[in-house]
Amino acid sequence: MMKKSLVAVAVMAVSGMASAQSTVTIYGLIDAYFGSVKSGTLTQTVVNSGGLQSSRFGFKGTEDLGGGLKANFVLEAGFNVDTGASRAYDNPYTNAATTAMFGRQTFVGLSGGFGEVKLGKMWTPFDEVKGSGAAGFDANVFAPATNVWSSNSYSDLPGNAIYYSTPNFSGFSAAVMHSFGENKTATVGAGSISSMNVAYSAGPLAAALSYQTQKSTGAVAATKYTQLNGSYDLGVVKLLGAYGTTKNQSSPVTTLAQEKTKEYQLGLDFPVSSTFTLSGGYARSKGTRAAGASELKRTGYGIAGLYAMSKRTNLYAGYQNAKETAAGLADRKDSTVGVGVRHTF
Amino acid sequence: MMKKSLVAVAVMAVSGMASAQSTVTIYGLIDAYFGSVKSGTLTQTVVNSGGLQSSRFGFKGTEDLGGGLKANFVLEAGFNVDTGASRAYDNPYTNAATTAMFGRQTFVGLSGGFGEVKLGKMWTPFDEVKGSGAAGFDANVFAPATNVWSSNSYSDLPGNAIYYSTPNFSGFSAAVMHSFGENKTATVGAGSISSMNVAYSAGPLAAALSYQTQKSTGAVAATKYTQLNGSYDLGVVKLLGAYGTTKNQSSPVTTLAQEKTKEYQLGLDFPVSSTFTLSGGYARSKGTRAAGASELKRTGYGIAGLYAMSKRTNLYAGYQNAKETAAGLADRKDSTVGVGVRHTF
Amino acid sequence: MMKKSLVAVAVMAVSGMASAQSTVTIYGLIDAYFGSVKSGTLTQTVVNSGGLQSSRFGFKGTEDLGGGLKANFVLEAGFNVDTGASRAYDNPYTNAATTAMFGRQTFVGLSGGFGEVKLGKMWTPFDEVKGSGAAGFDANVFAPATNVWSSNSYSDLPGNAIYYSTPNFSGFSAAVMHSFGENKTATVGAGSISSMNVAYSAGPLAAALSYQTQKSTGAVAATKYTQLNGSYDLGVVKLLGAYGTTKNQSSPVTTLAQEKTKEYQLGLDFPVSSTFTLSGGYARSKGTRAAGASELKRTGYGIAGLYAMSKRTNLYAGYQNAKETAAGLADRKDSTVGVGVRHTF
Repeated sequence: MMKKSLVAVAVMAVSGMASAQSTVTIYGLIDAYFGSVKSGTLTQTVVNSGGLQSSRFGFKGTEDLGGGLKANFVLEAGFNVDTGASRAYDNPYTNAATTAMFGRQTFVGLSGGFGEVKLGKMWTPFDEVKGSGAAGFDANVFAPATNVWSSNSYSDLPGNAIYYSTPNFSGFSAAVMHSFGENKTATVGAGSISSMNVAYSAGPLAAALSYQTQKSTGAVAATKYTQLNGSYDLGVVKLLGAYGTTKNQSSPVTTLAQEKTKEYQLGLDFPVSSTFTLSGGYARSKGTRAAGASELKRTGYGIAGLYAMSKRTNLYAGYQNAKETAAGLADRKDSTVGVGVRHTF
Repeated sequence: MMKKSLVAVAVMAVSGMASAQSTVTIYGLIDAYFGSVKSGTLTQTVVNSGGLQSSRFGFKGTEDLGGGLKANFVLEAGFNVDTGASRAYDNPYTNAATTAMFGRQTFVGLSGGFGEVKLGKMWTPFDEVKGSGAAGFDANVFAPATNVWSSNSYSDLPGNAIYYSTPNFSGFSAAVMHSFGENKTATVGAGSISSMNVAYSAGPLAAALSYQTQKSTGAVAATKYTQLNGSYDLGVVKLLGAYGTTKNQSSPVTTLAQEKTKEYQLGLDFPVSSTFTLSGGYARSKGTRAAGASELKRTGYGIAGLYAMSKRTNLYAGYQNAKETAAGLADRKDSTVGVGVRHTF
Repeated sequence: MMKKSLVAVAVMAVSGMASAQSTVTIYGLIDAYFGSVKSGTLTQTVVNSGGLQSSRFGFKGTEDLGGGLKANFVLEAGFNVDTGASRAYDNPYTNAATTAMFGRQTFVGLSGGFGEVKLGKMWTPFDEVKGSGAAGFDANVFAPATNVWSSNSYSDLPGNAIYYSTPNFSGFSAAVMHSFGENKTATVGAGSISSMNVAYSAGPLAAALSYQTQKSTGAVAATKYTQLNGSYDLGVVKLLGAYGTTKNQSSPVTTLAQEKTKEYQLGLDFPVSSTFTLSGGYARSKGTRAAGASELKRTGYGIAGLYAMSKRTNLYAGYQNAKETAAGLADRKDSTVGVGVRHTF
């Protein structure tokens, strides 16, 4: 009896100390699946990374500066669990795939009553809310819009950026970010990426409007993305939906240039039991191409099941299918089926 | 007296908590030596990495899922302590040296009464038992078979893999792994690597039989490795031995193609005192080459001494020598001498 | 009352255990600034990394071996917080920019009454004392000598190295390092880098003399750097100064070869309050070029202010300007202005 209470006190003391002294937290997510990937006419049997979410690990920390002010940092690396390699990310200003040690996030900043400011490389506000209306558990391989939406090719981590987000005002919040291309030459101005969102969340309803404009250099026209994501939780099932447009956008699947695209997706999260959830949906994209070319249409659907062995370890299975059609061109089909495991630490 | 018991309880409490809350362990090994490396006719004075074992660091963790079931992960990076660079590993499907952030291991899996399943990139079962009959402390620079055995060029970490190992049955255990090349084209099937071992360990005796077959693409013939490793601990000295064959194997030292190779090594671990151990041995490889070419023969020996300053910090010195002869070709000699330090954390 | 004392004991117990069991410490520094960089005729608006100090994270550890002897290791990575990429470092033997996972330091070694020995990749003794006479807070972007001194191009981390430093003798200490090029060929000997310093520090006075000689291969003439750095703390202000020479040195800013250079800098650290410090100074470099060419002259100044929000989080602002002139050539100007944040963990 005596010993028990001592133990309890000791644990409290340790917990308190840990939060006071610990200045860095290590965290991560490892997601691997076994399956079959069909890309056009070619089908591969694979062990791949990131069926539900991209694999990652990171260091993060928060320092209390007093008066509600905090200093924050995140260093987050992406990697492929099937190869051990750093995940490559597109540099939006050079259009080159680059491999960075911390390919996901590196920033330092301050937060307080005024909101939060970040300096470095962070997710764009457009990206922050993009998956919120998607079925398939966080919009990776099994999401309906995979290989369907043109807007999948937006730049999520341009870097060289300043970010500001507001505090939460009665469920409303907003964020804005600007990235500097740092690629001005004697004759051409620097490119830039601006991104913003406005979000509302209260009770069963969540909705977010987001916008992003991208110029790789000052000499080229901007590509513009607009999107509305929403969800409504009925308890027995959660309704998901998103609508978006792109302008001057080339396609992620083919090399056909699309001048304007309209796209949407609808889906459901269905909690079958406390440990098993089904999620599925349908997505569509319709776009005009360069002057004179026929319309390009893509449709897709995805369904996935998630079994929670624990809060940190999940098993999953899923299927996703995408189809592309354009008058005068052969249809193209892409699909993925797989079973996998996701573990967080 | 009172304080002491409180301290003891507190430490217990903390230990308990740590094992419950800690979800990631950081570990590593740093091995550097100063020496001289002779490669053919050229001798360099060097500070090199990995005299005894490759330098590495990693994150690993285990989550108890209840009922004997556990979720496990490992993220392990290799690096050269002399340059700070990630260690490059051969991609067996592209034959390109690739540098991966986690170049040694990245997997997630489950273990329990049924054994262990892993998904990702892990050591092949052939690799897991390969060094068990080698002198020179874990088969790196000073092992007799270095620059001698053709089978050194097997692929130890192909990635894109599924792995299963059995539980231990009265000293017996077995493991099997399959790696998918994921490189199918319209005309050629995907490559693959399959690997397996059966091991026995009880009292002074340990023995392991292993087999690995490799195809870089579906169009090429497989390279096949078979090996028997064993050791017997007499107390005053530990006897070590290994025998292996390869088929359709090209050499690690020269560009001569070997069609078939037979190779063996014999060695001793001799504990001079509780803190000082000597290890040495002899290795030989004999192989036929492409039709009509003469036989290729390589012999080598290595000796090393290890002084344990602590369990975690060791000093070592070693020498290894390899010689290659083939009728009609000039002999080739390779050797390394060095003194170094190995530290684990 | 009882609870409080238990807590105190528990914390003590935990602290003691932590220092006994912890074998690795994670640490880092993240420094990002927003500003404008003028390089010759081109000006970019930027979010950059390392206004005051290069961003980094690392693992380090020390094991007590008894009798005053310790085993030590450091694995330190450099990265750019604006892109997440590993920072590239010049390989002095290949003149190629290389990206290493641990691009800053990787070594293992022993320390004790005899001093310290390191094996691997570590800062040269020349580098260790180079910034000690520089204004601008550790000689990065806002230091007066940035884009001014020819000696900025010395190799700070050649790798393949052995290092020894003495203990402190009444304020005196010294260090020496040798790096092996490991690039001998059949016709040309290996390159090498040797570096050393002698330092004195007592009361308000600190001074250090340092020397470094570099040969990329055995066939080329050595480049030689000599430098004297010093500071004197008057309390109300700290005086800073440095004088150096280079021989056979090519310039960091232009491609003009300089045969011999003499350079100096003078500066002040002025603690305005307990949380705000100003630092500024002036630097100059004058060099002969290849036979017959005119003299090359560069001058620069820098000023920066540092506000300490806490010991670990600082805000800063700074400006630095450099000008290069040579008879018969157009003048060149470089400058940087920026505001940023530095956070350590």
